[in-house]
Amino acid sequence: MSVLQEISSNVRNMKQLENSVLARRTTQIKEELRQGVRKSYKEVIDVSWGDPHKAGVKPLSFVRQVLAACLYPQLMDGDKLLVDVRQRAQRLLKACTGGSVGSYSATAGIPEIVQRVSEFIMRRDGGVPSHPENIYICPGSQWALTNILTVLVNPKASPRTGVLTPVPCHSTTVLSLTMLGAVVVPYYLREESGWALEVEELQRALDSAKGVCNPLALYVINPGNPAGYVQSRKSVQEVIQFAAEKRLFLLADEVYQECVYGEKTEFVSYKRALAEMGPPLSDRVELASFHTASKSLMGDLFSTNACAPVLGQIALDVMMNPPQPGDPSYHLYVKETQHIRTSVAENVKRVDEVINSLPGFSCQLVEGGAFAFPRLFLPPKATKRAEEAGMPPDTFYCLRLLEEAGVLLSPGTDYGQKEGTYHIRFCIMTSLDIMEELLRRLSIFHKRFMKEFS
Amino acid sequence: MSVLQEISSNVRNMKQLENSVLARRTTQIKEELRQGVRKSYKEVIDVSWGDPHKAGVKPLSFVRQVLAACLYPQLMDGDKLLVDVRQRAQRLLKACTGGSVGSYSATAGIPEIVQRVSEFIMRRDGGVPSHPENIYICPGSQWALTNILTVLVNPKASPRTGVLTPVPCHSTTVLSLTMLGAVVVPYYLREESGWALEVEELQRALDSAKGVCNPLALYVINPGNPAGYVQSRKSVQEVIQFAAEKRLFLLADEVYQECVYGEKTEFVSYKRALAEMGPPLSDRVELASFHTASKSLMGDLFSTNACAPVLGQIALDVMMNPPQPGDPSYHLYVKETQHIRTSVAENVKRVDEVINSLPGFSCQLVEGGAFAFPRLFLPPKATKRAEEAGMPPDTFYCLRLLEEAGVLLSPGTDYGQKEGTYHIRFCIMTSLDIMEELLRRLSIFHKRFMKEFS
Repeated sequence: MSVLQEISSNVRNMKQLENSVLARRTTQIKEELRQGVRKSYKEVIDVSWGDPHKAGVKPLSFVRQVLAACLYPQLMDGDKLLVDVRQRAQRLLKACTGGSVGSYSATAGIPEIVQRVSEFIMRRDGGVPSHPENIYICPGSQWALTNILTVLVNPKASPRTGVLTPVPCHSTTVLSLTMLGAVVVPYYLREESGWALEVEELQRALDSAKGVCNPLALYVINPGNPAGYVQSRKSVQEVIQFAAEKRLFLLADEVYQECVYGEKTEFVSYKRALAEMGPPLSDRVELASFHTASKSLMGDLFSTNACAPVLGQIALDVMMNPPQPGDPSYHLYVKETQHIRTSVAENVKRVDEVINSLPGFSCQLVEGGAFAFPRLFLPPKATKRAEEAGMPPDTFYCLRLLEEAGVLLSPGTDYGQKEGTYHIRFCIMTSLDIMEELLRRLSIFHKRFMKEFS
Repeated sequence: MSVLQEISSNVRNMKQLENSVLARRTTQIKEELRQGVRKSYKEVIDVSWGDPHKAGVKPLSFVRQVLAACLYPQLMDGDKLLVDVRQRAQRLLKACTGGSVGSYSATAGIPEIVQRVSEFIMRRDGGVPSHPENIYICPGSQWALTNILTVLVNPKASPRTGVLTPVPCHSTTVLSLTMLGAVVVPYYLREESGWALEVEELQRALDSAKGVCNPLALYVINPGNPAGYVQSRKSVQEVIQFAAEKRLFLLADEVYQECVYGEKTEFVSYKRALAEMGPPLSDRVELASFHTASKSLMGDLFSTNACAPVLGQIALDVMMNPPQPGDPSYHLYVKETQHIRTSVAENVKRVDEVINSLPGFSCQLVEGGAFAFPRLFLPPKATKRAEEAGMPPDTFYCLRLLEEAGVLLSPGTDYGQKEGTYHIRFCIMTSLDIMEELLRRLSIFHKRFMKEFS
């Protein structure tokens, strides 16, 4: 008896795509071709996904040059890369924490980039203001959509949460909705009119939901996928009007906004149309719209939910198979990794010495991982003061440490701890000088703090 | 009245981290320092997250060189990069679809890399076999864990699904469990014994769940985070034995496996310990273990759930702000993007001409997006044959097209379509020659198919 019989019914309800039958057979055919089986074709043309590079479209040089320079800044030393590539890379690296593209950024994205995204949206929308605080950079537009739906869809609601969804619609959104336990309320695009999105049909769909679910959101795709329509300004306005009247959260998938081919066809964003319709409507409609660097002209799929980011996969390959003795890169690789290893080992030793020498601190020996989690014995006066300030005692300690010594580490409360015990957590994978400075500041602050509350 | 009052209760139950108070104050302090406010320190040391590059650790040259070469292969032309870097990059690029790191890979990862991951695991585990089909490369270990939990946790189960979780534990897992509607069943690590994981405590935790929830999985972190313990082989074996007896799915977070500092401390993977314990146990325990390139020595956070991948963000910046007239890169950028634009416009025209000239096909004009979605009027004999084969008629058509003409596109069934209508979808963002070849093969096949079933 497997625990997997308990598998979530939402997941079980996810429909297997017909495409997977075809994909499996494609793998077999490719293997047959490799083994020399004669067919009327020499290779399979795969245009089943939106993957331009697979289908012969070349990546843009400027994009790739800037990314390569950010990854390995020494490339900028020579004159192989043009000056604007180097300048762009330098500016972007300065905006990265620790000057490395391998750091975390702010959760909503690197502030400088968020700022430039908002400027792009303003230019795109003919000057309609765009505020950086409304922008959230995510690992892919489908990731963003799924996460908004996670907030909107209440898995325990009865009747269930409904989302109006176009037919035809690319499969990922429908799968996400199913997984979250939402009800897909289909509205049909009218093929005979060039896949037009008609408000009468939205109304019909909404009526069909009565007694079945509670429709909370309206999902639109413009330009379309798979149907290649582009909504007119009037059509966008009608949809917004409908969403306002029916109090539907509007989810506008606009990832193909740069891919517009019709002679007189123009892309009008939902954000722009909504702003231009003015208050009270523009204050009332809740809209999330999605764009991405993975589609359209760039078509570089750097982060996606369909598979792990390929660059991350390549990094994984290098981690699993580092340079070997005899390889030209071996010496430097060993030197660099040894340096990290000895630094961290030294940090572990210093943390043990310094922290355990401080009164009111006790730190178990760090055997592994990237963190120290010492226990903090706070004087009753300190816990009382924290209580008065309305925060857990270790948060109070951390806030004072930040304020007075400029050291940010995190309170044990965030990780769970035995009732009445307090801890702090900090990363030990730092350079030696940063660790020394950290321990110096922490020691001075800690002694003063303990004295103050003794 | 906002629709957001309907927000999922699971999301509402997610606890705000104390760290966010500190993070907000840190932003203010940094701004104060920038404005010249005098403090006893000049900059804030932030060691609250596991982010080595932020804390002064340098990226590994070999990793960065290989990634840069994969991104911009022209870098390999000179002798700036060593020969093993060039060879590695060439080998990896050959494994990428279309020779580009900007394509989708197979869902579980690039097969060549998956293969080498399994070889790494075998070496790590002293020869215990590792099978590629058990390996799944994901965008980060937390992504992987959340997705497994999505399958395991039934949001509608009563009593709710429980997951045994260590205290202390890093916050992301606890937040994921809450978001999914699972019950966190805490088990405490014994700090006094170097944060030991004791089976008696697991038993106590399991007993505590009685009447509260249905515990289905046991989550362990080894080496620890935030507590820096490393489990002994005996301890790992005891935990496995416990999971087997209690029929718990074992989730082993081993992302810090290379970060082991104690003199006599050795990392023993759960996979190895389980295999070495042998049948019947090794056949019975269900285990998922997690490793990553984002932590440990490399510490390059290329894909993460905490923020969007920084390289993707940089690509976004370039998309929003392409080279301008006068910039050295402007000419090439315009040439490349124009080439893509004209190719796709030509493809759209050709699709319209060719598809609409075929009997039994009708394609609305593609105005935007990346796909054509022509309607297919299938002869009754064909739909009957499809029925006999137990598949939707358009899947049947696509399978025959794949088999006989080596063209993979996807059936309308996967996107939804009006009852009784059939469609196919294919990507139009291809090079001109691939589109011509595609239309040629499709035309020949289609005429033959229609004749066969007329």
